[in-house]
Amino acid sequence: MINVLVAGFPGAMGQKVVNMLKAHDDFKLTAIFNPVVLDLDPAEYGLDPDVKVWHSYDEIEDGVADVWVDFTTPKAVAQNIEAAINHGIHPVVGTSGMAADDQKRVIALAAEKHIGGLIAPNFGISAVLLMQFAAQAAKYFPDAEVIEMHHEDKLDAPSGTARATAEMIAKARTAQPRPTTDDPAHGEKIDGVPVHAVRLPGYVAHEQVLFGAPGEALTIRQDSFDRESFMSGVAVAISKVQQLDTLVVGLEHLL
Amino acid sequence: MINVLVAGFPGAMGQKVVNMLKAHDDFKLTAIFNPVVLDLDPAEYGLDPDVKVWHSYDEIEDGVADVWVDFTTPKAVAQNIEAAINHGIHPVVGTSGMAADDQKRVIALAAEKHIGGLIAPNFGISAVLLMQFAAQAAKYFPDAEVIEMHHEDKLDAPSGTARATAEMIAKARTAQPRPTTDDPAHGEKIDGVPVHAVRLPGYVAHEQVLFGAPGEALTIRQDSFDRESFMSGVAVAISKVQQLDTLVVGLEHLL
Amino acid sequence: MINVLVAGFPGAMGQKVVNMLKAHDDFKLTAIFNPVVLDLDPAEYGLDPDVKVWHSYDEIEDGVADVWVDFTTPKAVAQNIEAAINHGIHPVVGTSGMAADDQKRVIALAAEKHIGGLIAPNFGISAVLLMQFAAQAAKYFPDAEVIEMHHEDKLDAPSGTARATAEMIAKARTAQPRPTTDDPAHGEKIDGVPVHAVRLPGYVAHEQVLFGAPGEALTIRQDSFDRESFMSGVAVAISKVQQLDTLVVGLEHLL
Amino acid sequence: MINVLVAGFPGAMGQKVVNMLKAHDDFKLTAIFNPVVLDLDPAEYGLDPDVKVWHSYDEIEDGVADVWVDFTTPKAVAQNIEAAINHGIHPVVGTSGMAADDQKRVIALAAEKHIGGLIAPNFGISAVLLMQFAAQAAKYFPDAEVIEMHHEDKLDAPSGTARATAEMIAKARTAQPRPTTDDPAHGEKIDGVPVHAVRLPGYVAHEQVLFGAPGEALTIRQDSFDRESFMSGVAVAISKVQQLDTLVVGLEHLL
Repeated sequence: MINVLVAGFPGAMGQKVVNMLKAHDDFKLTAIFNPVVLDLDPAEYGLDPDVKVWHSYDEIEDGVADVWVDFTTPKAVAQNIEAAINHGIHPVVGTSGMAADDQKRVIALAAEKHIGGLIAPNFGISAVLLMQFAAQAAKYFPDAEVIEMHHEDKLDAPSGTARATAEMIAKARTAQPRPTTDDPAHGEKIDGVPVHAVRLPGYVAHEQVLFGAPGEALTIRQDSFDRESFMSGVAVAISKVQQLDTLVVGLEHLL
Repeated sequence: MINVLVAGFPGAMGQKVVNMLKAHDDFKLTAIFNPVVLDLDPAEYGLDPDVKVWHSYDEIEDGVADVWVDFTTPKAVAQNIEAAINHGIHPVVGTSGMAADDQKRVIALAAEKHIGGLIAPNFGISAVLLMQFAAQAAKYFPDAEVIEMHHEDKLDAPSGTARATAEMIAKARTAQPRPTTDDPAHGEKIDGVPVHAVRLPGYVAHEQVLFGAPGEALTIRQDSFDRESFMSGVAVAISKVQQLDTLVVGLEHLL
Repeated sequence: MINVLVAGFPGAMGQKVVNMLKAHDDFKLTAIFNPVVLDLDPAEYGLDPDVKVWHSYDEIEDGVADVWVDFTTPKAVAQNIEAAINHGIHPVVGTSGMAADDQKRVIALAAEKHIGGLIAPNFGISAVLLMQFAAQAAKYFPDAEVIEMHHEDKLDAPSGTARATAEMIAKARTAQPRPTTDDPAHGEKIDGVPVHAVRLPGYVAHEQVLFGAPGEALTIRQDSFDRESFMSGVAVAISKVQQLDTLVVGLEHLL
Repeated sequence: MINVLVAGFPGAMGQKVVNMLKAHDDFKLTAIFNPVVLDLDPAEYGLDPDVKVWHSYDEIEDGVADVWVDFTTPKAVAQNIEAAINHGIHPVVGTSGMAADDQKRVIALAAEKHIGGLIAPNFGISAVLLMQFAAQAAKYFPDAEVIEMHHEDKLDAPSGTARATAEMIAKARTAQPRPTTDDPAHGEKIDGVPVHAVRLPGYVAHEQVLFGAPGEALTIRQDSFDRESFMSGVAVAISKVQQLDTLVVGLEHLL
């Protein structure tokens, strides 16, 4: 049984984490960290009355939690991670927007205290596996293109994940790909990999990697239909984070 | 039973036409038009000994063929079509590269003589249906993108068919699509439709049209694995061309 | 401007209809029919105070609504449609489960009164277009298979839409398909069309039709990510139902 | 530079191997083993005149070849492998149909002589990667289905590769999948994994693995358009087989 503290409990992701913990036999929600809502009553949220509710770092008791799941704010996250590490609790962090300096500092602290933890920009397992498989396939198939498809409101194109995938493919190649063209229809070249972005209503978040070689093709595709999907990644992280002894970035370290 | 003359008999497409005619119960190869090889012996090609072989327009006998299938050369095609029409034979033309003026002239001649015929830039039925369906869907879904995928040696991007599909979508729309972005990853905009071209070894000739609307998506895809596929379109054309009384351009007129 | 009455206003689909009407410039919600909640206050739902709220058929005023949108219950629906027709209001019905006899009776009444209307088992435009395109393609490609993919909780397999698609393909064929095999992996044969059902968590409601012919393939796919998508179909129905003068079944009659 | 002997030189696959060797800078065809055609003249096949042509095992000279590529017959293959091993040449075997006993014997011989080699049922890299990735993904996504698509003349359904993929998924799972249904549309269950077979003209050889989890999906697809594709796998095998010191079965051992 793994005891879990949740920070960012009232947020959309925090609530999804609580529901996931309830549904999972091996996890137990034992504590909530919430410096904002001072009179938070666990019973009101349908929680066990013995769940601890802490509002400041001073109140945290050692031994109550093994893992600290953090979906809070860019402002709070670095201090939260420090508090977790100082209490021997393994951080699993989905909060985005931490400053680079802060990230360096908490990684150093974790190394010093020998407390493993995870900071994950993306908890979607299908996206992380797609990137891993693309890097493996690129060793055999140097010719690849990436197509990502998102809802019409996504502002940046291509997506950060598509960009990262192209970079991983370029790095993993062991042979020169064929030259690409400058045609505007032939995608944006990221490290020499054409990347195409589709923006259409109805779509949520999807990515395809296409590999071609004489007489054959390999395609890897992932679809994120719902943010619900990130919970499988959080569950993997909670299960395995205690195996780590440093604070790493990227769910792939636990897959 | 439809009697068929083949012009361009020795070429790759001509040979495919002959094989298709043999396999089809309703068609009969009755004549070959070949001004180049003067001593062509039908028996040598495994043909019926009573197949007529003509080397000049003068030799053509009326009544021997209902349909003139032409896979010849840009130089010969216009004169061939004129000869067909003048003998009351319906032309089905797959030869590409006819000059615009020549095309106008033969269309006018067909109208004058009331002989229907077909000039088809693409005999692939799946490609023609894809374009038709895309135009129908665009009435309900103004937001669309086109992705075509071809072998790495294809020089132009996007393909002519993808370009034509985008134009048909733009024309068929009954509502304004959402604005597209200028991001280089977001395709070449053809009449406001983003078109993406993938160039990879292994691929042959493939096209997808993606439509998106709140909560749903519709995708139409066609794959041409082999030039063999064009024969189904030629067969449809031979079957139906006698229903036409003008010379039209595009297989869609017979689907 | 089309004036619309909504029956089944408090349900999930009813609420979606109300939101869609608000967002649409050509539609105006003018009346609610609700025999259950007697003290329903439109203001409470953010509606115009001049929206009429009727609790019994007697209260219905002629001229207030052009279209009656019905997402109610199998019990109420037939009587609702009768009331609509008798008041000269065109019914657009998404309620499922009407008895066959009741359906016959209301269709006869509509014919007698010359009031057009629509009963639609599926308002998803992508699904309706997929079926239409599949029937058109089957004329040229007799060999087809259907693959539908749904969430793991869907009880019946294959889905009603997949079944209907297979029947439409079989009916539209103009040539004999190749024989199918008895292998259990080769799908359930519905009118000779192999139909495959995939049941996986994460998936919502998706259908593909695959056509194959020598050297080429055509694939039509639709994805329903969200029930939201049905609203586009309801909007089409509201826009066009007044063009009908009989009560028809199936959104395809208006596409 | 790797020196290669080809056995089965006159066959379709043998010829493809020869062309691949010519196109590859790191490989050199140095010998042909052909006990059938006794007067085979390398020049006639456009080969270097100094290519050795051997008709019996006695003629084989040590040091002339590093790798023995075998695309011969079920009858000849085991003896060929023995001859290769006895001359210190690493066998790369694509010949299918070797008896189980023979296979055991040659594996034992290779172990005894410390000569590594490869017997590969499938040299298609995309198919081998698909199976590897499917096994990796199954650790995180227990719910999976397989869809394979082949030309209408393929007699068995599902394909051997699809069957093997399902078995690998079942073995790699770390959690129980959801129960499948008995519906005939829901695939043949192989080790509890539903497997669907599509048989349509036009298709060549294609396989998809679909994984689903709450809110997300992962799909891996491979297409074999042409037997040409197997040559990439043969090239990988020739490059790496000297790293092995036992005779292994399955290209995945070298990927």
